[in-house]
Amino acid sequence: MRRPILPTETYVEGILSGNRVLLGQAITLVESARPEHQIRAREVIAKLLMEAPPTQPSMRVAITGAPGAGKSTFIEALGNLLTGQGRKVAVLAIDPSSALTRGSILGDKTRMERLSTSEQAFVRPSPAGDALGGVARKTRETILLVEAAGYDTVLVETVGVGQSEMAAKYMTDLFLLLLLPGAGDELQGIKRGIVEMADVLVVNKADGDRVKTANQARAHYLNAVHLFPARPNGWPPRVLTCSAETGAGIAEMWETIGEFRDKGLQNGFFQENRKQQAAYWLQEALKQGLESWFQNHTAAQTVLKAVETEVLAGRMSPFAAADEVLKKVFTFLPVPPQ
Amino acid sequence: MRRPILPTETYVEGILSGNRVLLGQAITLVESARPEHQIRAREVIAKLLMEAPPTQPSMRVAITGAPGAGKSTFIEALGNLLTGQGRKVAVLAIDPSSALTRGSILGDKTRMERLSTSEQAFVRPSPAGDALGGVARKTRETILLVEAAGYDTVLVETVGVGQSEMAAKYMTDLFLLLLLPGAGDELQGIKRGIVEMADVLVVNKADGDRVKTANQARAHYLNAVHLFPARPNGWPPRVLTCSAETGAGIAEMWETIGEFRDKGLQNGFFQENRKQQAAYWLQEALKQGLESWFQNHTAAQTVLKAVETEVLAGRMSPFAAADEVLKKVFTFLPVPPQ
Repeated sequence: MRRPILPTETYVEGILSGNRVLLGQAITLVESARPEHQIRAREVIAKLLMEAPPTQPSMRVAITGAPGAGKSTFIEALGNLLTGQGRKVAVLAIDPSSALTRGSILGDKTRMERLSTSEQAFVRPSPAGDALGGVARKTRETILLVEAAGYDTVLVETVGVGQSEMAAKYMTDLFLLLLLPGAGDELQGIKRGIVEMADVLVVNKADGDRVKTANQARAHYLNAVHLFPARPNGWPPRVLTCSAETGAGIAEMWETIGEFRDKGLQNGFFQENRKQQAAYWLQEALKQGLESWFQNHTAAQTVLKAVETEVLAGRMSPFAAADEVLKKVFTFLPVPPQ
Repeated sequence: MRRPILPTETYVEGILSGNRVLLGQAITLVESARPEHQIRAREVIAKLLMEAPPTQPSMRVAITGAPGAGKSTFIEALGNLLTGQGRKVAVLAIDPSSALTRGSILGDKTRMERLSTSEQAFVRPSPAGDALGGVARKTRETILLVEAAGYDTVLVETVGVGQSEMAAKYMTDLFLLLLLPGAGDELQGIKRGIVEMADVLVVNKADGDRVKTANQARAHYLNAVHLFPARPNGWPPRVLTCSAETGAGIAEMWETIGEFRDKGLQNGFFQENRKQQAAYWLQEALKQGLESWFQNHTAAQTVLKAVETEVLAGRMSPFAAADEVLKKVFTFLPVPPQ
């Protein structure tokens, strides 16, 4: 980013007044690897949280599904429905592979033609990053920025085949799995664990002569989810059908999401879940911070290189070697056992 | 442990001269939570590795299977075969639950009646520990001790239902899965991931009128493993049958393990795998050491408690909070992003 860093107050005021350009620039700071950008980004977020805490919580929805399930069309249809209801919708994404593929996910805004030009929508491609942890952190912080900018609905898209789903689950209120009609989840490459994570399963493409297969798929998944163990949020997963193409079932699906939200706010699970998520990200950030610091500790790294050879050759126990390295860093020994 | 700590040299000489009592006491030091025991244990291991590096690598085998698959009887049969061939066999275990159940696994030596009284065998129950990480570390260090004591075959038993299998895999050369005849792996509560990890699958209880069902089960698993993706070690998993009760198939099974070992030593995968495992445990020990140190850092913990409240209430970003805490510990800011 060659653009000069603006004062914190400029970003804050811009974001609060709905300036999309300044919002985008603040997100770019979040996504940047440069320390001075990071510092400014955190100042902006801190100020926003302090000055303009959301009066009521947004709705954060993770949307995943196998390639070909029609995620972009689905988000376009859902987003247009919601902006039509007066909501402000932010669409974000987590896709660590996009660093390699240069943003396969959400990179092509033409697939969300109407939504991406709407004044009430903000579509942002997946940040780049060499590791999921980095990408996920950036998306998590971006959520705070768009919420401060007044977006009351945040849709987080993931690719549906890897580890990104766990990260998305840990930053959203509801996990939605989009499915194809006429193909078992194994055929769709969806892992069982991801099916079990879903609060709402939606069989897409229920239109024309595919309605029957979609209903069959729905019955199949209904059967499957009945066998899952009871969930901590007390919400039995719902299985629905829709057609992102025709719009059929999209409004009903959003009503179900509203029901999930109301129930959770009522029984306190919604709030409790957000608390647990915040605690999780705090722990993750601490771990990451410790490891980064250690990796930049020159003396420790020098010792590490020396003992590593011994460990790999089997001449030194890995645990004794770790003690050796940490001795350079700390004044305690040995590693307190668990 | 009320027994006084002996000088390092006493343990080292005792272990090298085959003194089983001193070997047992050194393992007790490894398993102890007290820092002075830990220090002595590491000194003993360091000295053993330096003074008496194994002339040729032992054979480390992980053995897992659902409850009821007959693991104890199987280990008894295998162990007796091996001691009969002049090998020295150590039997260890990883079972984090044993902290609660007071050693369900290997706790009852009567199930290995002959083996546990053999001069050429050393049977040790699972160490206690509140977390898998701690239990696994103890078993990993105990392997080094028994190898120094001349045990050329190390069998590591796990319960077959949880996370212990990953830990066992990361400290052994071969992963063996024991199965029951006449029940699919789903019925046996064995996760697919564990089946995929196995280098050798053995259908036990192939005796009397169960021979036919055992052969059917073998065919079923042969079919299943053929569908698995190719493995980094270039070894297609073998599926065998045996009867730990009658001893049928046990010798053939050990021959297969020998084949696995020879092939791996020849193509270098055996050595490469051990190197990767050592690197893994070194990284784990470093992470654990960093986190333990941080948890004992009073100033950091005080700040953490204060910011945690803000984070859980949504008034502070978890990442800014982590910076705040780490600022107390280090002089760098912010957390270098991934």
